[in-house]
Amino acid sequence: MTQYCFLNGKILPIEEAKISPIDIGLLRGYGIYDGLAAFGGKPFRFMDHWNRFVSGAHILNLNIPITEEKAEKVIVELLEKNGHMERANIRMILTGGETLGGIEYDFENPTFYILTEKWDSLPEDYYKNGAKLITYNHKRELPEYKTTNYIRATVLQNFRKEEKAVEILYVYDGEVLECATSNIFLVKNNTLITPSENILKGITRKVVLELADGKYKIEERSVGEEELKTADEIFITSSFKDIIPVVKVDDFEIAGGEVGGVTKDLMAKFKAYIAVPE
Amino acid sequence: MTQYCFLNGKILPIEEAKISPIDIGLLRGYGIYDGLAAFGGKPFRFMDHWNRFVSGAHILNLNIPITEEKAEKVIVELLEKNGHMERANIRMILTGGETLGGIEYDFENPTFYILTEKWDSLPEDYYKNGAKLITYNHKRELPEYKTTNYIRATVLQNFRKEEKAVEILYVYDGEVLECATSNIFLVKNNTLITPSENILKGITRKVVLELADGKYKIEERSVGEEELKTADEIFITSSFKDIIPVVKVDDFEIAGGEVGGVTKDLMAKFKAYIAVPE
Repeated sequence: MTQYCFLNGKILPIEEAKISPIDIGLLRGYGIYDGLAAFGGKPFRFMDHWNRFVSGAHILNLNIPITEEKAEKVIVELLEKNGHMERANIRMILTGGETLGGIEYDFENPTFYILTEKWDSLPEDYYKNGAKLITYNHKRELPEYKTTNYIRATVLQNFRKEEKAVEILYVYDGEVLECATSNIFLVKNNTLITPSENILKGITRKVVLELADGKYKIEERSVGEEELKTADEIFITSSFKDIIPVVKVDDFEIAGGEVGGVTKDLMAKFKAYIAVPE
Repeated sequence: MTQYCFLNGKILPIEEAKISPIDIGLLRGYGIYDGLAAFGGKPFRFMDHWNRFVSGAHILNLNIPITEEKAEKVIVELLEKNGHMERANIRMILTGGETLGGIEYDFENPTFYILTEKWDSLPEDYYKNGAKLITYNHKRELPEYKTTNYIRATVLQNFRKEEKAVEILYVYDGEVLECATSNIFLVKNNTLITPSENILKGITRKVVLELADGKYKIEERSVGEEELKTADEIFITSSFKDIIPVVKVDDFEIAGGEVGGVTKDLMAKFKAYIAVPE
């Protein structure tokens, strides 16, 4: 089945969608990105992702050459054309377009494209029995924005796999920040604790905070690395992973290696929520 | 005149050389880069650039799908085909190729390409009367390697132009590091002082150190920001800019705003050297 994407105003087969080798997204890694889940042919929490995309475009002085209405319509059309009516991943990418003078670009001629792909679920065991994180001392550049700079995350994938971990947890100066492509939550005495600065605020993180509101106390604040060891529960969130319980951080077992009750409750609430998104 | 590039084993017109939108160089900014000058159809100090490229490929676990002999031959052929027998710029780019599973790639199928372009000289006034730097607090990620991550450098270009500066000087924690795409030298009492850590060691920097050897004392060491103000002379070096005298850093005039004698001497030596490269 031919797979289509959207590139600079047109829907076309992905093999025909080609980017110039002088695109500043390649030569200078200059671009922003967003990843959304789709359920039943519809993007999940589209406006949350779009607003984040807009803030990234703004900080990099990039021109989004499409309205949000058109982008959402294109996504729906792509999902249908590509046969992605089950759960799917959507990726939106925006770069400065062709490089000028080695390190500049024409604001009026960006490169914008949308890809959709089949969702590959992670091992069921992660959701049932919990997964492992490995820590790495790092703070992303421009952490509040979803630029295309995932050099560190990419180079660490082999290490992650060797360590049989689901994610890399960035810690910096003794502070817990975020995972390479996920956010982290700690549960302590029925309170949800999650870092609030120097991180990318994920949309699944946002939904979890909404679902927890009123039922659990919430602390969005800086989290010390030593708090990992005294947490009752830990879990991570991501658009492509939902909520994954964490039972090990490096070699330290969290709360006896059992998936906790608050995590289970939020996983059930999240599952119900994505089954009937607004 | 049709311009050619080299992409994954073939020389082809640049319009026909297209990169997949799922290339990890785009989706995850995962790639390395090098920029070389060419004089008279020949790459300048090719092996120095190549060795740096190899070290970057190694750190990112990227596979260079071409030997150095072949790469040099291709460059010579491209320069001739593109009519770049005068001074020209050469760019080599290596990415992980098509993205797999969102954030991985197949080591055996990288994307490698070479571009050549006409050299655009900077204003003659910079070389004659000196130029201005603006400082910015930043340290690059993986500063010793030439990854394609130039997000900060690119986003700062408008600021640089507004400030009528030739370059952005990265300082970090009170230390002078490097410019966005150049190295920096200070001259004090006939001694050349240049940062040695947390920087990309440029090839022009290396040539200047060779040319100065025996004639000037050389200190490769950490440089405090306050040393900028007491320097007798400052200059920057880059493959695409050669040696540019600096007479102003932010609003501070260096050594009375005059281009110094050591800078002039090294500029003359460098000019003679590139006229007859080995």
